[in-house]
Amino acid sequence: MEIHWTMLFALEAAGTIAFASSGAMVAIEKNLDLLGIIVLGVITAVGGGMIRDITIGNIPPSLFRNPVYVWMSLITVLLLFLVIRFHPRIMEGRYRSTYEKVMNIFDAVGLGAFTVVGINTAIEAGYGDYRFLAAFLGVVTGVGGGMLRDIMANQTPYVLRKHFYACASIIGAVCYIFLRELIPGNSAMLLCAFLVVIIRLLATRYRWNLPRASGKSKDRR
Amino acid sequence: MEIHWTMLFALEAAGTIAFASSGAMVAIEKNLDLLGIIVLGVITAVGGGMIRDITIGNIPPSLFRNPVYVWMSLITVLLLFLVIRFHPRIMEGRYRSTYEKVMNIFDAVGLGAFTVVGINTAIEAGYGDYRFLAAFLGVVTGVGGGMLRDIMANQTPYVLRKHFYACASIIGAVCYIFLRELIPGNSAMLLCAFLVVIIRLLATRYRWNLPRASGKSKDRR
Amino acid sequence: MEIHWTMLFALEAAGTIAFASSGAMVAIEKNLDLLGIIVLGVITAVGGGMIRDITIGNIPPSLFRNPVYVWMSLITVLLLFLVIRFHPRIMEGRYRSTYEKVMNIFDAVGLGAFTVVGINTAIEAGYGDYRFLAAFLGVVTGVGGGMLRDIMANQTPYVLRKHFYACASIIGAVCYIFLRELIPGNSAMLLCAFLVVIIRLLATRYRWNLPRASGKSKDRR
Repeated sequence: MEIHWTMLFALEAAGTIAFASSGAMVAIEKNLDLLGIIVLGVITAVGGGMIRDITIGNIPPSLFRNPVYVWMSLITVLLLFLVIRFHPRIMEGRYRSTYEKVMNIFDAVGLGAFTVVGINTAIEAGYGDYRFLAAFLGVVTGVGGGMLRDIMANQTPYVLRKHFYACASIIGAVCYIFLRELIPGNSAMLLCAFLVVIIRLLATRYRWNLPRASGKSKDRR
Repeated sequence: MEIHWTMLFALEAAGTIAFASSGAMVAIEKNLDLLGIIVLGVITAVGGGMIRDITIGNIPPSLFRNPVYVWMSLITVLLLFLVIRFHPRIMEGRYRSTYEKVMNIFDAVGLGAFTVVGINTAIEAGYGDYRFLAAFLGVVTGVGGGMLRDIMANQTPYVLRKHFYACASIIGAVCYIFLRELIPGNSAMLLCAFLVVIIRLLATRYRWNLPRASGKSKDRR
Repeated sequence: MEIHWTMLFALEAAGTIAFASSGAMVAIEKNLDLLGIIVLGVITAVGGGMIRDITIGNIPPSLFRNPVYVWMSLITVLLLFLVIRFHPRIMEGRYRSTYEKVMNIFDAVGLGAFTVVGINTAIEAGYGDYRFLAAFLGVVTGVGGGMLRDIMANQTPYVLRKHFYACASIIGAVCYIFLRELIPGNSAMLLCAFLVVIIRLLATRYRWNLPRASGKSKDRR
């Protein structure tokens, strides 16, 4: 059984790196200073879990009890800062495109891992039978950090705008909640994390978008 | 006594519909996709209560224990989306004006109902004697959802800008807190909810505004 | 020992006045109405403490149990509003410059006082040994109110952008956490509050800024 948790930790680590990098990149684009870059990077990585823990009274939030992901995201942000500061060219051309491809995959992996971890937290706290709450906690763990990043960077949350992002998390969360009553929990967990990753990658690849009220998509990047 | 609670539920339902619609309309104006429309709609309706519950450690927040208002706002948002998507013309001319009149009344009713419900929650949680806290919880239940909507939609909260909106809630909250020591609680509750509705409608009708430091009102719509 | 607490209260009072004024000034610049000015003023003064208390389950947050700082910030905001409304000229020329100098010092004092108070709260709640959490609570008490102000006023948080602001608080917080194990707590507390003030004033005076990824500082006011 141990193997499941090792895998989950690896997935979470990949997600932490991707989320922290996305926060740092937003801060860099907004020309924030080093502290702003660190804060946005770390909050993108651990902010979703913090909202989750406060919502169910998991006090103090787990990021404070076991700050391993805080350190991981801090190191990620500092490395990224140093690279961009001293090799600004690296963020152009071929490297940039490779970077974005890798980060897109890591980000998808993180969304999957964080979603199931959020639901695990709900179950451990005794809220496994509150299905709506459990699903909410899974999704908020996955997308909450990115929302805090966007709110703090003063831009409309990405997750509300494009690419089916939160939907992947919602679908995975709902599947996990029902599947774990049918098959062993650990298998259900990894299966659903994987499902989120697949949906998220397909959505990016084929530019799936949800409909808008106007019937057309203004911003079609 | 039952009658009071039935009435309160009806008022809350009207408020939920109005608040969810207002969130959905903001999302539609910002050209968000269906998920963004749902999230803003639902959060406008139940976000105030969520802030209230987290503030006093009412865990998990009541929206998760009894998600009736979540479903109600979800259905409202979906109906509104379908109507606007397939009959975009309906949002012009005469229908639009009728829609806005009805929603304005529902919204006022919701502000009144949510304000007194927030104070009831404070009392039930044993904070009836913390008058400042109780008033805060009433007002935050009334206006917190709209604030979250505006923060997430990246606009200055409406409630901070115009039309005496939060003042109606504040006046009603303070009256309820003092009145319930003089007359039976249920009557005080409905009376004060009604007071909020009246003040709110008069404020919209006669364009009451609070003074600004500059002495003039730049945006006088 | 009493003297330490009297001094701390005086520092906190100065900070409350400065923070409330800064919130009110942002609201006035954004042309918000009186309620918006009050809300931003009060939230800048007490918002950091509120985030701190919610993070560690200090329920209800201390601002509700002992609203002295709420009243203090309310009075500050109202006085400022009246002065600016009826003597708009006072905010020009020489007076403005004196006002900003005084407020800058009060603000630095507040940052120092709020940082150590945040850590005291962590210690009292039994989290003295969670050093990362204690430091976070100190810093969030110092800068959280300003962040809420900026998020609500729809601008990128000042603290993420300029002048080494949060760094002063971080340095003071870390020093206090380690120093209080070496010298008596009350002396460590005042010493570190003083350290924050000095760093903050030097940073403003000499325009210390953290590096940016682009290697240059676009906005050099």
